Amino acid sequence: MGTIMNEDGLKRLLEQVKEGHVSVEEAVGDLKNLPFEDLGFAKVDHHRSIRNGYPEVIFCQGKTVGQIKSIVQKLMENNNNILATRAGEDVYKGILELTRDAVYYETARIVVVKRRDLIVTDKMIAVITAGTSDIPVAEEAAVTAETLGNGVDRVYDVGVAGIHRLFANSDHLMRANVLIVVAGMEGALASVVGGMVDKPVIAVPTSVGYGANFGGLSALLAMLNSCASGIGVVNIDNGFGAGYLASMINKL
Amino acid sequence: MGTIMNEDGLKRLLEQVKEGHVSVEEAVGDLKNLPFEDLGFAKVDHHRSIRNGYPEVIFCQGKTVGQIKSIVQKLMENNNNILATRAGEDVYKGILELTRDAVYYETARIVVVKRRDLIVTDKMIAVITAGTSDIPVAEEAAVTAETLGNGVDRVYDVGVAGIHRLFANSDHLMRANVLIVVAGMEGALASVVGGMVDKPVIAVPTSVGYGANFGGLSALLAMLNSCASGIGVVNIDNGFGAGYLASMINKL
Amino acid sequence: MGTIMNEDGLKRLLEQVKEGHVSVEEAVGDLKNLPFEDLGFAKVDHHRSIRNGYPEVIFCQGKTVGQIKSIVQKLMENNNNILATRAGEDVYKGILELTRDAVYYETARIVVVKRRDLIVTDKMIAVITAGTSDIPVAEEAAVTAETLGNGVDRVYDVGVAGIHRLFANSDHLMRANVLIVVAGMEGALASVVGGMVDKPVIAVPTSVGYGANFGGLSALLAMLNSCASGIGVVNIDNGFGAGYLASMINKL
Amino acid sequence: MGTIMNEDGLKRLLEQVKEGHVSVEEAVGDLKNLPFEDLGFAKVDHHRSIRNGYPEVIFCQGKTVGQIKSIVQKLMENNNNILATRAGEDVYKGILELTRDAVYYETARIVVVKRRDLIVTDKMIAVITAGTSDIPVAEEAAVTAETLGNGVDRVYDVGVAGIHRLFANSDHLMRANVLIVVAGMEGALASVVGGMVDKPVIAVPTSVGYGANFGGLSALLAMLNSCASGIGVVNIDNGFGAGYLASMINKL
Amino acid sequence: MGTIMNEDGLKRLLEQVKEGHVSVEEAVGDLKNLPFEDLGFAKVDHHRSIRNGYPEVIFCQGKTVGQIKSIVQKLMENNNNILATRAGEDVYKGILELTRDAVYYETARIVVVKRRDLIVTDKMIAVITAGTSDIPVAEEAAVTAETLGNGVDRVYDVGVAGIHRLFANSDHLMRANVLIVVAGMEGALASVVGGMVDKPVIAVPTSVGYGANFGGLSALLAMLNSCASGIGVVNIDNGFGAGYLASMINKL
Amino acid sequence: MGTIMNEDGLKRLLEQVKEGHVSVEEAVGDLKNLPFEDLGFAKVDHHRSIRNGYPEVIFCQGKTVGQIKSIVQKLMENNNNILATRAGEDVYKGILELTRDAVYYETARIVVVKRRDLIVTDKMIAVITAGTSDIPVAEEAAVTAETLGNGVDRVYDVGVAGIHRLFANSDHLMRANVLIVVAGMEGALASVVGGMVDKPVIAVPTSVGYGANFGGLSALLAMLNSCASGIGVVNIDNGFGAGYLASMINKL
Amino acid sequence: MGTIMNEDGLKRLLEQVKEGHVSVEEAVGDLKNLPFEDLGFAKVDHHRSIRNGYPEVIFCQGKTVGQIKSIVQKLMENNNNILATRAGEDVYKGILELTRDAVYYETARIVVVKRRDLIVTDKMIAVITAGTSDIPVAEEAAVTAETLGNGVDRVYDVGVAGIHRLFANSDHLMRANVLIVVAGMEGALASVVGGMVDKPVIAVPTSVGYGANFGGLSALLAMLNSCASGIGVVNIDNGFGAGYLASMINKL
Amino acid sequence: MGTIMNEDGLKRLLEQVKEGHVSVEEAVGDLKNLPFEDLGFAKVDHHRSIRNGYPEVIFCQGKTVGQIKSIVQKLMENNNNILATRAGEDVYKGILELTRDAVYYETARIVVVKRRDLIVTDKMIAVITAGTSDIPVAEEAAVTAETLGNGVDRVYDVGVAGIHRLFANSDHLMRANVLIVVAGMEGALASVVGGMVDKPVIAVPTSVGYGANFGGLSALLAMLNSCASGIGVVNIDNGFGAGYLASMINKL
Repeated sequence: MGTIMNEDGLKRLLEQVKEGHVSVEEAVGDLKNLPFEDLGFAKVDHHRSIRNGYPEVIFCQGKTVGQIKSIVQKLMENNNNILATRAGEDVYKGILELTRDAVYYETARIVVVKRRDLIVTDKMIAVITAGTSDIPVAEEAAVTAETLGNGVDRVYDVGVAGIHRLFANSDHLMRANVLIVVAGMEGALASVVGGMVDKPVIAVPTSVGYGANFGGLSALLAMLNSCASGIGVVNIDNGFGAGYLASMINKL
Repeated sequence: MGTIMNEDGLKRLLEQVKEGHVSVEEAVGDLKNLPFEDLGFAKVDHHRSIRNGYPEVIFCQGKTVGQIKSIVQKLMENNNNILATRAGEDVYKGILELTRDAVYYETARIVVVKRRDLIVTDKMIAVITAGTSDIPVAEEAAVTAETLGNGVDRVYDVGVAGIHRLFANSDHLMRANVLIVVAGMEGALASVVGGMVDKPVIAVPTSVGYGANFGGLSALLAMLNSCASGIGVVNIDNGFGAGYLASMINKL
Repeated sequence: MGTIMNEDGLKRLLEQVKEGHVSVEEAVGDLKNLPFEDLGFAKVDHHRSIRNGYPEVIFCQGKTVGQIKSIVQKLMENNNNILATRAGEDVYKGILELTRDAVYYETARIVVVKRRDLIVTDKMIAVITAGTSDIPVAEEAAVTAETLGNGVDRVYDVGVAGIHRLFANSDHLMRANVLIVVAGMEGALASVVGGMVDKPVIAVPTSVGYGANFGGLSALLAMLNSCASGIGVVNIDNGFGAGYLASMINKL
Repeated sequence: MGTIMNEDGLKRLLEQVKEGHVSVEEAVGDLKNLPFEDLGFAKVDHHRSIRNGYPEVIFCQGKTVGQIKSIVQKLMENNNNILATRAGEDVYKGILELTRDAVYYETARIVVVKRRDLIVTDKMIAVITAGTSDIPVAEEAAVTAETLGNGVDRVYDVGVAGIHRLFANSDHLMRANVLIVVAGMEGALASVVGGMVDKPVIAVPTSVGYGANFGGLSALLAMLNSCASGIGVVNIDNGFGAGYLASMINKL
Repeated sequence: MGTIMNEDGLKRLLEQVKEGHVSVEEAVGDLKNLPFEDLGFAKVDHHRSIRNGYPEVIFCQGKTVGQIKSIVQKLMENNNNILATRAGEDVYKGILELTRDAVYYETARIVVVKRRDLIVTDKMIAVITAGTSDIPVAEEAAVTAETLGNGVDRVYDVGVAGIHRLFANSDHLMRANVLIVVAGMEGALASVVGGMVDKPVIAVPTSVGYGANFGGLSALLAMLNSCASGIGVVNIDNGFGAGYLASMINKL
Repeated sequence: MGTIMNEDGLKRLLEQVKEGHVSVEEAVGDLKNLPFEDLGFAKVDHHRSIRNGYPEVIFCQGKTVGQIKSIVQKLMENNNNILATRAGEDVYKGILELTRDAVYYETARIVVVKRRDLIVTDKMIAVITAGTSDIPVAEEAAVTAETLGNGVDRVYDVGVAGIHRLFANSDHLMRANVLIVVAGMEGALASVVGGMVDKPVIAVPTSVGYGANFGGLSALLAMLNSCASGIGVVNIDNGFGAGYLASMINKL
Repeated sequence: MGTIMNEDGLKRLLEQVKEGHVSVEEAVGDLKNLPFEDLGFAKVDHHRSIRNGYPEVIFCQGKTVGQIKSIVQKLMENNNNILATRAGEDVYKGILELTRDAVYYETARIVVVKRRDLIVTDKMIAVITAGTSDIPVAEEAAVTAETLGNGVDRVYDVGVAGIHRLFANSDHLMRANVLIVVAGMEGALASVVGGMVDKPVIAVPTSVGYGANFGGLSALLAMLNSCASGIGVVNIDNGFGAGYLASMINKL
Repeated sequence: MGTIMNEDGLKRLLEQVKEGHVSVEEAVGDLKNLPFEDLGFAKVDHHRSIRNGYPEVIFCQGKTVGQIKSIVQKLMENNNNILATRAGEDVYKGILELTRDAVYYETARIVVVKRRDLIVTDKMIAVITAGTSDIPVAEEAAVTAETLGNGVDRVYDVGVAGIHRLFANSDHLMRANVLIVVAGMEGALASVVGGMVDKPVIAVPTSVGYGANFGGLSALLAMLNSCASGIGVVNIDNGFGAGYLASMINKL
């Protein structure tokens, strides 16, 4: 906290110290010890969740099921909602052993544990894909946005090679408050959508393609160099990041 | 229009054709001819400006002063506000010959011609830089955002190598509705700011640095791979794009 | 359609509306609803096939056998020819369950379902490879071109390290109307062939090689930088794209 | 010749040797000496021009005006048409000293010396650009195609960020026999055009843009990875190559 | 030796030759034959270990268990301590067959065989990670440093997205004599730590992340371009190298 | 301060607040306001200089002479030593107008303003270059290290292509406490030196070379992949960074 | 042949045609049909073997055992020696079924079938490796050179991190007529050896290493940028190519 | 010397020490001090020149005329031949002030000072270029080879796009003992030549070209991945290196 406590909060605390309502030791604790606990391999950060009003997020890739279960266990003690991304079925099964509340979104590879209700906004986030193979990344974005309390409108497989399909869905685009465009290969869809709407567009390059797509680099560069204004780009295949940022914008 | 006209508009037009209020020829014109005029080398797009409620933008890099003046001349006939980016002094002088309303923001390298008042929001956009050399890009973002009707709070030279300077400005960060982080070299500032606030962050990598920064690649990759959520990235040195996207979000 | 309907078509439609032969609702439908159906994960585009006079193409990589079967099922209802590329044997077996007409080209990894006869041109497309390992990509091109109604002349393993082998086949090269050159490693064959013929050459870089070929980058760059004129390049290992483009040119 | 002489020609020559109509020495000459002359620094290749039925081409970049003049002088002796690309004004002035027939296309940076009439086809090549800054490359393609005897239809500044401008020109696209798409930045225009027409598309990435366009790499990768079929790609900024290939296809 | 023998040593040896205390043959041997023995596939270098006062190091990656056992066997004859890095469990089991003294650090993937006591310094090396997934690399550094006789203070999972966690551990940072910062993704932690302390920082980029991290390139570039002074960078995932360098500095 | 103040300092301050020796306002100031002043474009950080015991550093590249002079003016008020790197002669002349104490190291492109004496250590830093062209970077390192109070031993032009020259200087290498190796091209010198000494080596890749050195990338990769242990790498051409880190290590 | 037949040969042939000793048909055959036969997937080139005086080479990677066996079968009919590189044990077993003369070099992954004796030169090729992991590539070079009739002197594991080991083997280096240096990681060994000898050095970068070695790129760039003269570089891991080139030089 | 002195030489020296014919001090000097002198910025290496039997080489790029003159002055005292590469006219004029023997090869950008006669071999080195723009690099190679005492046969402008020109020169190729192939763009000429001859080929990629040639990378990769055996590659534009290596091979 110390570092992000504003002047008023600091003044109040110091006055309480001066007046004896708060002991020096307590104040040191307030200023210095943030509420995380040591699991040995990871420090669960309740603080951030409360600050952001969002569920706790676990990025499962590169963690063992055992590690993930320990983190989930800890988080459930505080009755937080949990969003576990990049979760295989083994992760889902592991979490199921801890709680029956776990729901698995297979295509999105997300496990959600819902403990508290979220305030849901009726402003819509449109999630749009160029092709069928981009859907898993799109679902990661969509499920993330839904779990964070947003309405989501899915518009899939409307890539620019058959642009009439995109235009046939233009009402979905026009209706959205924020748009997420998910595309691999040449990533042109982001520019076309960005030129059609006057709302913020989050572009997600995917690794879909082969050869000179270089694992998503072609779509990434295309999106960064878009001739349309109003586009922010996230990492290759980062559906979660797009869903999170779109939600943040949608709830302003 | 055809492609982005919604169902209601289309129906209305067709009914007018049916009832004879609109001739076939007129309808063909409505559906087919969008309001741009041919300058030979460039088609000025009044339509887009009206649709977005924003000033017309001219990206001057790669255009001659003569070409720019022709575009400005055309746009002024429609009484549009104009925002000319990447404009050297020669561009400014050229535009001055057309109108005394032109204002030149030297550091931002932007010329603004203001013809109509903008509705200004009191929600703030914070523009933050890591170093002194990042300021020109930051100013491009800031002047863009201001010209689009936003309040802007500048927090410059607060890079992570002296992180106390950033924290000393944390109230500016907390107060903002949207944040633009402009950084070259290792681009770490985006992650640190992204971890401190729960508002959308637009990250602008700059080409500031040398050697293994590879013209801004180091900052670009850092921002795309940020461990903090809620960050959207624009092209290297793309201050205008950041200001435009931030404004779009800020005015939702 | 709207977007690609020409002025005459539009006029005719509007006149029919005016004269009452077509209702407003019908016209809205004609202008707005393109003929695709929703499979949930993919929208089959009959429209495009009819427009191009070509079989429907399914790019199987990254799709499940189940998804592919659903698409094939749908397409067969319209009696279209089908060309499924990047198809393993499991895909072939899955399609066989739907129709006995499926033929599997193992080296090309293509499944063809033929329902309608194609008009076949007697102008030849030559498909030329540098080495033995380039043959799978070449076959993808050759089978594609054949399925699209072209004669194909295969000239394999005539790389520049033994250039007499290429010259011994020069009559095949001279006879062709369009040429496809498939080469990995240093991709030099495209330039040599391009210098020998005065017909269009489609160059396909392959990922054949190792080390500093960087997955086909060496051949790709060589072909893009060819000193011979009249060469168009497609993506690494994109045999289908080359066959499709060659067919398009051959049938002009 | 030897290497590209077909079997019949060879047989005929040998029979003439056998019958004494051609001496051994003459035959050796026929088989071995191709008609080029030594300028010291460059060997002018009349042979190729005659073979291809095209004007001689001089790529001026990296050559001195003196070298270029020597080549032009030599070529004019054979009454060939000449097409000099990447030619600055100094090159034009140098050639003017040799002949008053030289015409300079300033934007295209091409000098044409016309000595013989070309058979002109009435099938059209459309040359399309995304932006204003792409026009010099487009002009290099257009002037090349015109000089090679093709009709050219220019459709400039119709990038995807304002896609209605592209559709307003769809009749130009539909009318063309071959299309050249010239685009920098994210290069998305190639995919959109490729999805609209069923004619061959030559895509020319340009170096227009900044930052993460990496000198044209973004557009190049986008075009190679296009989701639309029927697209062949040439080198970055290679307008000449595109015009040449399009002409070759157009004249089949 | 010859090459690194200083002038005094050389003089002494030559005087002994002159005085007949050392024979010419012995001197040739001293100057020329360094103490290694030929195992056929690898030459064990006792010399270096003695020179550096450090254990022998075996980099196991790319070596068979059989090769590793031969090297270990040889080294044990000289009673050296052994540090085997990048060692899987099969390597550990293989070494166990040679000696019961082998200890396996599973996370670090290191086998240590301790034969001689090390002089241990009480100056501390802090090993800091951004995330949980960086721990294996950090442990390679930590175990290396410990085996080389240093005290190690582990500060894990304190990445910049929750920077209060880092500050809550600032006393650990301040106490250290040398710091090792291990981070993947955007690698920003190195800059933040480098700005907080006035001690040498060894930065270790890791391959943790996905997409545009390009196997650790993003963190590597970030660390090389750090705006904080006093940072030296080692190879991606090179925990051993960081531990070794830190120890070298710590023991000066 | 707050963030890097340790527990004891915090406790003491709070006790003083409690006891009334320090007012709440003063404590807020102590905790919150760090001693920097606003120059508009840059915040001079006296705090860091005092903390590190080092001169203030100005990185001149990308700053105007006017900006640099303002910073120098400010710093001189606090009687700090100043080290201005990447300084051209115009910078030197600008600083001379402020103070006669400025000394210009031309090859190093460094201006030093000395106001206070430094404690100088007699432990030596060796600065070693592969070639003559690497000397400017080496001098940046050497002058930096000297200005920070270290003895420096220059060993120039001893690259591995003539390795006897390196060995002829081996006593210089052996005598050093820390070594800086400056090399472009293939950067092999770092590995050879790293294998000869048991002291920390700071490797500085330079952009010296051409072609496939890719602006210093070849030397950078070589140094990162060194087979010798105990090497830390800084950015390409970053002589200052090497000198600073070496000094930090040398003064431990 | 045509293309590589010299003037004298051509003249002789034509004279024989003239004199009737050779029929026109025979001459056409001599000039046009080179002695290869069609296996369907590959054309075996006896011609080249005879021309070069070397065994036939089969690059097995990317070919099936069946394809390899067909090629071997064909080659054995002409009693050629055969060198099959990148051959796994399955390839060896397959060839064994055709002939008992096959010998397998496991580390080199080479199968040799010896049918004719080679003239062996007594000039030596030294094959030198930096580390143990480079040995498989070195063996590919060494066995290739031996099979081509050269004496080979192996000097393994003498990398620059312990440069005394290299110098202890300097007599081996001095004795060689051609040297092959095989090294991964930073590839510095090539420069050091190149600086010690005045004989041609063939440098083979290997993919040995990890992280920023980028699959051998670090060693490749280092070798290309070597400050030592007299070094030619082959592809990453291309032991065969080095052995072949060294043999060609050694037998001049 | 020490490091490259063989056993016999060492023994002889030690025996002389033992027998008192050489004093200890002298022997230390012999073993330790190699004959170079310190110019401050560069150590001239007479030793290497004598060892290699070659002229001294000065790489002028990155050195001032003053530095170059000092080196030349020093070298002339030993009556060495001098070869100064990458030398502009200013360098030539500077050297002329020292000696009238200096000859300037303008295209090659080489200055030669000839003081001693070279033994010239009558075995030829062929220097072959793909285009006119490659000639400066080729001349650097040719003049280097000539100055080192080789006959050189120039075959320029015979690139693969007009392959008959290459074949018309096949007798030049067949006659050569070593071949240097200089090519930019796609670098295909190296493979074609390598397939025609059974002599060593040195391939020199040049930076000639534009766009996706990435400063010579396309030709470099093509040459490294050549399907022809017997090719060694040097750095981009490294004509000197190719001439030097070819000479070394030619004089074996």
